[in-house]
Amino acid sequence: MELANGAGCCCCDDRHVDTERPLDRMYEEGHEDPVSVITGLCRQFYQLGWVTGTGGGISVRQGRCVYMAPSGVQKERIRRQDIFVLDLETGEILQRPVSTPSLRVSQCCPLFYNAFRLRDAGACIHTHSPAAVMVTLLPRTQADAEFRITHLEMIKGIPLHGYHDTLVIPVIDNTAHEEELAGDMAKAMQRYPKSPAVLVRRHGLYAWGRDDVEAKTVTECLDYLFDMAVRMQHAGIDYTEPPVDCRQCYASDV
Amino acid sequence: MELANGAGCCCCDDRHVDTERPLDRMYEEGHEDPVSVITGLCRQFYQLGWVTGTGGGISVRQGRCVYMAPSGVQKERIRRQDIFVLDLETGEILQRPVSTPSLRVSQCCPLFYNAFRLRDAGACIHTHSPAAVMVTLLPRTQADAEFRITHLEMIKGIPLHGYHDTLVIPVIDNTAHEEELAGDMAKAMQRYPKSPAVLVRRHGLYAWGRDDVEAKTVTECLDYLFDMAVRMQHAGIDYTEPPVDCRQCYASDV
Amino acid sequence: MELANGAGCCCCDDRHVDTERPLDRMYEEGHEDPVSVITGLCRQFYQLGWVTGTGGGISVRQGRCVYMAPSGVQKERIRRQDIFVLDLETGEILQRPVSTPSLRVSQCCPLFYNAFRLRDAGACIHTHSPAAVMVTLLPRTQADAEFRITHLEMIKGIPLHGYHDTLVIPVIDNTAHEEELAGDMAKAMQRYPKSPAVLVRRHGLYAWGRDDVEAKTVTECLDYLFDMAVRMQHAGIDYTEPPVDCRQCYASDV
Amino acid sequence: MELANGAGCCCCDDRHVDTERPLDRMYEEGHEDPVSVITGLCRQFYQLGWVTGTGGGISVRQGRCVYMAPSGVQKERIRRQDIFVLDLETGEILQRPVSTPSLRVSQCCPLFYNAFRLRDAGACIHTHSPAAVMVTLLPRTQADAEFRITHLEMIKGIPLHGYHDTLVIPVIDNTAHEEELAGDMAKAMQRYPKSPAVLVRRHGLYAWGRDDVEAKTVTECLDYLFDMAVRMQHAGIDYTEPPVDCRQCYASDV
Repeated sequence: MELANGAGCCCCDDRHVDTERPLDRMYEEGHEDPVSVITGLCRQFYQLGWVTGTGGGISVRQGRCVYMAPSGVQKERIRRQDIFVLDLETGEILQRPVSTPSLRVSQCCPLFYNAFRLRDAGACIHTHSPAAVMVTLLPRTQADAEFRITHLEMIKGIPLHGYHDTLVIPVIDNTAHEEELAGDMAKAMQRYPKSPAVLVRRHGLYAWGRDDVEAKTVTECLDYLFDMAVRMQHAGIDYTEPPVDCRQCYASDV
Repeated sequence: MELANGAGCCCCDDRHVDTERPLDRMYEEGHEDPVSVITGLCRQFYQLGWVTGTGGGISVRQGRCVYMAPSGVQKERIRRQDIFVLDLETGEILQRPVSTPSLRVSQCCPLFYNAFRLRDAGACIHTHSPAAVMVTLLPRTQADAEFRITHLEMIKGIPLHGYHDTLVIPVIDNTAHEEELAGDMAKAMQRYPKSPAVLVRRHGLYAWGRDDVEAKTVTECLDYLFDMAVRMQHAGIDYTEPPVDCRQCYASDV
Repeated sequence: MELANGAGCCCCDDRHVDTERPLDRMYEEGHEDPVSVITGLCRQFYQLGWVTGTGGGISVRQGRCVYMAPSGVQKERIRRQDIFVLDLETGEILQRPVSTPSLRVSQCCPLFYNAFRLRDAGACIHTHSPAAVMVTLLPRTQADAEFRITHLEMIKGIPLHGYHDTLVIPVIDNTAHEEELAGDMAKAMQRYPKSPAVLVRRHGLYAWGRDDVEAKTVTECLDYLFDMAVRMQHAGIDYTEPPVDCRQCYASDV
Repeated sequence: MELANGAGCCCCDDRHVDTERPLDRMYEEGHEDPVSVITGLCRQFYQLGWVTGTGGGISVRQGRCVYMAPSGVQKERIRRQDIFVLDLETGEILQRPVSTPSLRVSQCCPLFYNAFRLRDAGACIHTHSPAAVMVTLLPRTQADAEFRITHLEMIKGIPLHGYHDTLVIPVIDNTAHEEELAGDMAKAMQRYPKSPAVLVRRHGLYAWGRDDVEAKTVTECLDYLFDMAVRMQHAGIDYTEPPVDCRQCYASDV
């Protein structure tokens, strides 16, 4: 099931040398194969408290191949031989873990596919981070079905956003079954084209990027911003408005 | 004292190939022996802040053999040769650490046995997690001798529970000596047959599952939910009631 | 400077086989030499946030030899060749790091000696843990120059204390220079003979035990209790009084 | 691009044996080369939550050579071959990563240079630590454009400061682009000659020292003090004034 570097892909006979991709991206990944990326990042995300209790995870796309972990397994213990490979266009399972036939593919599958199909993402991360869940419950987020934050340096880590911008992440309601979220997530993605993520109330976050490095960077920046929003709310500081003395913001209002 | 894979068990001459067990369980454990499971998980639980100060631990059952750590030792430093083996039915100590005859078996022994005998558990975890202790002290939990929480995705990690359900964990009072808790714990387990855990006020948590993977998943989900309850209480959000706009919940009331 | 197992001690020609010591203690330490204990625990304490910014540390006594780290070095990077050896009775430096003659012995030296001489301790730990500092600033601790806590299971990890007891740790005021604390610490130790620790206001904790395992267990239990006290204070729960429904406590009042 | 120990430097033909440097400094660094220092500390800072989401970092100077990480890369994954070398005086890039020509040098470059040129620093650290950002938002810091704290032991970890002193760190406003901060940072450094750091509101911290060990110690002490300030503010304790019963402080007022 694992692709040697340079070997033809399981489903599309492509050698996965994406010539349009900037070299610095390839360097940052160290040319790691998607299977190693998934197992390695799941261990790292467990340390961050994002994928505890078998929840959360990451899916990586390479050409037409989509790599995904099984459902309901301990994320910090996923092994190379446990990963599924699916076809991007048909959604068909191309390869499944031989040693454990009873495993099923992650229930997040249709949500990961939203990111791949609607945004051409190369990777999508799902967390149950407590900070992400907390911001979906704050008064402002409840009223607006949006999480808004502005004037924190880490906003610059989100593509298309600068320090003076307001970052807006849509919030959708949770459902009894994870796969039922797919329609609402897709609608939110269409309404918020600048957002690289969707929050699910009382549940967690889906965030994506053009590859695993960008998806991870976006998720780390968002999680930091969620944590800061909770801290600021707690200290009575409004995280949704520019500071009153921001000359640039209030000058441009005129 | 350690069983080689496939060797006959110390007490029941059983080879421990549980044919009724689904394959995915066996895969997830990587066929680890109970001794490795205990030493490995104790290190992991120390990192999580669950077994600091020699408190807490885990016991694993395999057939009629019960594997258990000694009393009062540093949990992140337990070695393979330190584990006791007891008989499930008689409670007799079958094997004890040869190199350290003065060691005594964990004081949690009768509490772990509750899980094995009353619920047919394969593993039972005891934590002193600060979040677990804090929820036993919150006003609602004080009044009701129950911890209740609803409408958080992680509730789905607890067997027999869905997102719209209210998870109820009984709370018993602490006693001066750990073994005195066994009777109250057994009564609580009988009164709350759906609960996979019992909270001990001002002390911690006992949680179990059909094997170590399920026990760990349940404990991680519960600890996450305890942490969320403390955070929500702090932010003035009621964690015991469905959100006011939950159509499914209020529609089904009619 | 390092003693091979069984080699004669540097200062007292003793082979350090303490025959009065229970075997389980020797097992738990894995017969580690004091130098390895110090370097290993300093790394562990750094992870716990106890010895950041070169502050804090641990000293271990073996027979008449006292092992101590240098002053002002990064605790998570201490190497075997950096440890000083002092004489317990004279306080004289017996061995110093050859490779780095400019190093000075820890400024905590007179405070560690208090534990060795007044309590016959085998190890003494000093932390700058934020939770320890916070409890010295809480209103009750300010008024009484004592930290008091009762009815939490972890109190049982402190020698001579049970669940229903009130644990009392004296608090002394901080001074401009660490060595000036020694007199006040000694007085507090004499006034509080049951306490295995002294808190220093706006500074941190000194805690000890008959060996490094007991000193570490005591410090972990205390740090957990400090953290719980801050959390309980924050949630408006009195950590200094038995719960109002504790039958044993209020029955015995009569 | 990496210098073997004892090899001539890339830019100044200097063997980097700084004879004015005290031996204990050399020992503490273990004679590590700057490239290893940067890659190792970036991993450690990631664990501390200081450089998440590709933000933050460290630059080290050795003679006239300045070592710096690339812009926008994952700090916990920086490899030896990814580091830039710049000339201290001209600011010219002397060596760049061969394998990844598209990489650009860190945007913090002019801010790191402030520390090297205005303070003759040997290393400068930039963090996005949540505690650092929080203190820039507290009421006192907002009003004064200064962070002030006194009477905590960890203040002694900051050069030129004692326990009874008030540590003052200037706070500058954030800008849309990191390099625009350089002028304001330089002015703040000139106005606060005793401060080894500058806070950037809603952004983070720049801190420095004569070498990487001192820069790291200063940053750890400051981050601890920021965390304590947030905790004390939260508990209603004034962290900017001496305690009312400090005899030394109030006696010296007369």
